[in-house]
Amino acid sequence: MCRWMAYQGDPVYLESLLFEQEHSLIHQSLSARKSEVTVNADGFGLGWYDEREEPGLYHEVLPAWSDSNLKSLAKHIKSGLFFAHVRASTGTATNRSNCHPFSYKNWLFMHNGQIGGYEFLRWQLDRLIPEHLYNHRHGATDSEVIFLLMIANGLEKNPESAIEITLAQILDMMKQKNIKDPLRFTAVLSNGEDIIAVRFSSDNHAPSLYCKKFEQHIVIGSEPLDHCGDSWTQVPAGHIAHIKNNAYQIKALPELLKMTA
Amino acid sequence: MCRWMAYQGDPVYLESLLFEQEHSLIHQSLSARKSEVTVNADGFGLGWYDEREEPGLYHEVLPAWSDSNLKSLAKHIKSGLFFAHVRASTGTATNRSNCHPFSYKNWLFMHNGQIGGYEFLRWQLDRLIPEHLYNHRHGATDSEVIFLLMIANGLEKNPESAIEITLAQILDMMKQKNIKDPLRFTAVLSNGEDIIAVRFSSDNHAPSLYCKKFEQHIVIGSEPLDHCGDSWTQVPAGHIAHIKNNAYQIKALPELLKMTA
Amino acid sequence: MCRWMAYQGDPVYLESLLFEQEHSLIHQSLSARKSEVTVNADGFGLGWYDEREEPGLYHEVLPAWSDSNLKSLAKHIKSGLFFAHVRASTGTATNRSNCHPFSYKNWLFMHNGQIGGYEFLRWQLDRLIPEHLYNHRHGATDSEVIFLLMIANGLEKNPESAIEITLAQILDMMKQKNIKDPLRFTAVLSNGEDIIAVRFSSDNHAPSLYCKKFEQHIVIGSEPLDHCGDSWTQVPAGHIAHIKNNAYQIKALPELLKMTA
Amino acid sequence: MCRWMAYQGDPVYLESLLFEQEHSLIHQSLSARKSEVTVNADGFGLGWYDEREEPGLYHEVLPAWSDSNLKSLAKHIKSGLFFAHVRASTGTATNRSNCHPFSYKNWLFMHNGQIGGYEFLRWQLDRLIPEHLYNHRHGATDSEVIFLLMIANGLEKNPESAIEITLAQILDMMKQKNIKDPLRFTAVLSNGEDIIAVRFSSDNHAPSLYCKKFEQHIVIGSEPLDHCGDSWTQVPAGHIAHIKNNAYQIKALPELLKMTA
Repeated sequence: MCRWMAYQGDPVYLESLLFEQEHSLIHQSLSARKSEVTVNADGFGLGWYDEREEPGLYHEVLPAWSDSNLKSLAKHIKSGLFFAHVRASTGTATNRSNCHPFSYKNWLFMHNGQIGGYEFLRWQLDRLIPEHLYNHRHGATDSEVIFLLMIANGLEKNPESAIEITLAQILDMMKQKNIKDPLRFTAVLSNGEDIIAVRFSSDNHAPSLYCKKFEQHIVIGSEPLDHCGDSWTQVPAGHIAHIKNNAYQIKALPELLKMTA
Repeated sequence: MCRWMAYQGDPVYLESLLFEQEHSLIHQSLSARKSEVTVNADGFGLGWYDEREEPGLYHEVLPAWSDSNLKSLAKHIKSGLFFAHVRASTGTATNRSNCHPFSYKNWLFMHNGQIGGYEFLRWQLDRLIPEHLYNHRHGATDSEVIFLLMIANGLEKNPESAIEITLAQILDMMKQKNIKDPLRFTAVLSNGEDIIAVRFSSDNHAPSLYCKKFEQHIVIGSEPLDHCGDSWTQVPAGHIAHIKNNAYQIKALPELLKMTA
Repeated sequence: MCRWMAYQGDPVYLESLLFEQEHSLIHQSLSARKSEVTVNADGFGLGWYDEREEPGLYHEVLPAWSDSNLKSLAKHIKSGLFFAHVRASTGTATNRSNCHPFSYKNWLFMHNGQIGGYEFLRWQLDRLIPEHLYNHRHGATDSEVIFLLMIANGLEKNPESAIEITLAQILDMMKQKNIKDPLRFTAVLSNGEDIIAVRFSSDNHAPSLYCKKFEQHIVIGSEPLDHCGDSWTQVPAGHIAHIKNNAYQIKALPELLKMTA
Repeated sequence: MCRWMAYQGDPVYLESLLFEQEHSLIHQSLSARKSEVTVNADGFGLGWYDEREEPGLYHEVLPAWSDSNLKSLAKHIKSGLFFAHVRASTGTATNRSNCHPFSYKNWLFMHNGQIGGYEFLRWQLDRLIPEHLYNHRHGATDSEVIFLLMIANGLEKNPESAIEITLAQILDMMKQKNIKDPLRFTAVLSNGEDIIAVRFSSDNHAPSLYCKKFEQHIVIGSEPLDHCGDSWTQVPAGHIAHIKNNAYQIKALPELLKMTA
């Protein structure tokens, strides 16, 4: 499983979240507490918003803890809305094109989870990507194809519906192919204004998703960034968290709840 | 344009061809004589046959001349049939999944050229790849899709026909999309026993392809490896060279000649 | 020879200088006009000042033109004083520790040139580095040792004298070892406030150094960034350019002139 | 702590030891059983002997488990004497110049351990390297400087004495600098004919060193390669193992025993 975090609030240097927390993402990448896979060393990525319309992106195949550039960038880049992701590959190659977050225009997307039986579905899934989006298929991951399908399904106009349609589409295809492995999907999306985080699984093991409100900002992540796990809210499976203006709201997505085992 | 060379003959250390020629591929990667693009520094690759059934593969994104591993590998790997390729990207990313040679079972393939208007055709071309071959689509290049289509079109049984069918298929699709840019294609294939090299273009600028017979071996390449260009035979466009047991034969492929402008 | 540029002026996105000039550094890295070596693909680096005391740093071993991160960073990082450098190795390995610019506290340094016979002098030169600076010796280049010697020789208090003492020290050592190859040295230094650029060679082939004043900024570089070379001032060998507050001054360093052939 | 293994015996494909053991080095690099540090993802390296006088070398900064080249090389390279090493950095940068094994002429060296207070000793240690060996100082690790000092102290003529002199020299310097941290040193050396492995620490925590004789070969390693740890012989601290012609002998080095706490 991958690990990730996202921040919304007063602009801060990225290092304050990436390095200076007691259980920061960089520390997490070396050893896990609440996740099954021990090491997240198969590439990492950053996406951040500033005054420009499209987000900044940084992808690297080295382990996050040994990338000297990351230390300097995190010390000099300031943002009020950013994503960070450390990858543990579930099969596809370690190269930059397979690193999260993925971007499209002003949108960022990152993901933890897995489409069960992806190797038997790649052909079908890629064929669902419409022609006008196909040149945005840079890598070979399930994560990227989910993102492109969400865009095809109206992400820019109605994210909640795009999420529901896309997951239903994938589950349907898994059913046709008689795949028994689950679809696990915890994802974070942003258009540069607000953040949407979804937690879902077709079985009862949805990848974890935590939120915490601080005075001037909100942090969400695959794990708490400190050891006071109690002060973090776990988003229930089948739910969505909507983060805007230093506040978050959690609500159920009825279609997702229906699709849960 | 990319550059490449292939060797068939008595087993030799790779360095004797890759480094020790006056106009070796590694020197070529820094500066060109007969090719339009100056620098081939967007990744490189080796493929070689030995006692194992499947060929060995080495891909790197650094420029070939600055990869310390390549120097040592070329000094220690011995082969009687090998391929080497230095890439100048025509648009897709510099990552290992996009480096030549590509492999499938006991087959190797590498390529110099370009599908005109590839960015408008990727969607259509990927859809031609049959389901059982789709997990061999690791990168995003036109080269890889051509190779997979050749396999789909019977490469293992009848290479010449597979080449003709595949190029016709692509030209047909280019026509449908009203693409005016040419399909330029010089490629080398091997099953580990013999080598097939093809030279083709839909206009009259097919990428160059040279052969030379030495006492104990044959070399083919995008350029002569020495400065006595005269002693190298240029394969005509629309023709195929077949290399086996230290000899080569050149013959026309009538279907290819028909498709040439 | 390496290539480089430095900027001082109103804060701008790095891309406006790195990518958007007709003869930008990234274009230069692929082909040369005024420099002997064709390709600068042995690593590159950025250093930039912002609100933090120490400069930001980014080093990469890929060719600058094929690094997807560089494109995004240059689009999102804004600075009023920055350095960029593309390397053509003169012998030492292509790794990040050997990439310019080098940093020390609030200082940046980058360099084009070569200590003649460096392979015979490395032992002596490294022994001149004082103990308290030795852990700043990360790589193996002549450039880094020159920078550390300048610091040892009082760079922070009196840059001009530090430059003169250091070059004299190196020339002296070359003489002792009876080295006939020249010491060629064009370098750029900054403390985050102003920029100092030096041009020197012990023979009459000092690496080039150009300045140009624009309305709101100054650019210096190993080559003009546009094709109107006439509007750029070439700094004479043995001279120093001092850039501050959108103006530059050129003056001779008498000790350097004495050391020129 | 780093991890490593070495093989002497009938020539085999490297994959049979690197990948196909139940507790192979590649598996170990992801999770530890007998070592303190969890993850060995800060670069790795191979060194192997074949018909050529100097050993082959392969160094990479990616984690060993995600390097696609390693899989193919290990499947195609055959050797009767080879070294493999996965690194967990104790401070110096992750780059190829810092990856084990290190080589000199026909010699290979790799190491697990640490010079206590190395950051306070680097200046002194580098000054002990004689001038004629200094251009072999490619990186910045303590491991490389120990190797170069051993060569300076007569490794090629008398390895045991070179080991004793070098460790005594380093301990002496640590004493002068009043460093309390231990010198821990488990190392493997070969001239292409036989292998010498040493286990030492100035405290009583020498890094582990195991040997096992199989029918046609000997394996030594920082850990057993299978889960029958009982069948592996742990070399005692202060001892040396000498491997030749499919047999190993363990003996005490009296000078090392004296230097142990």
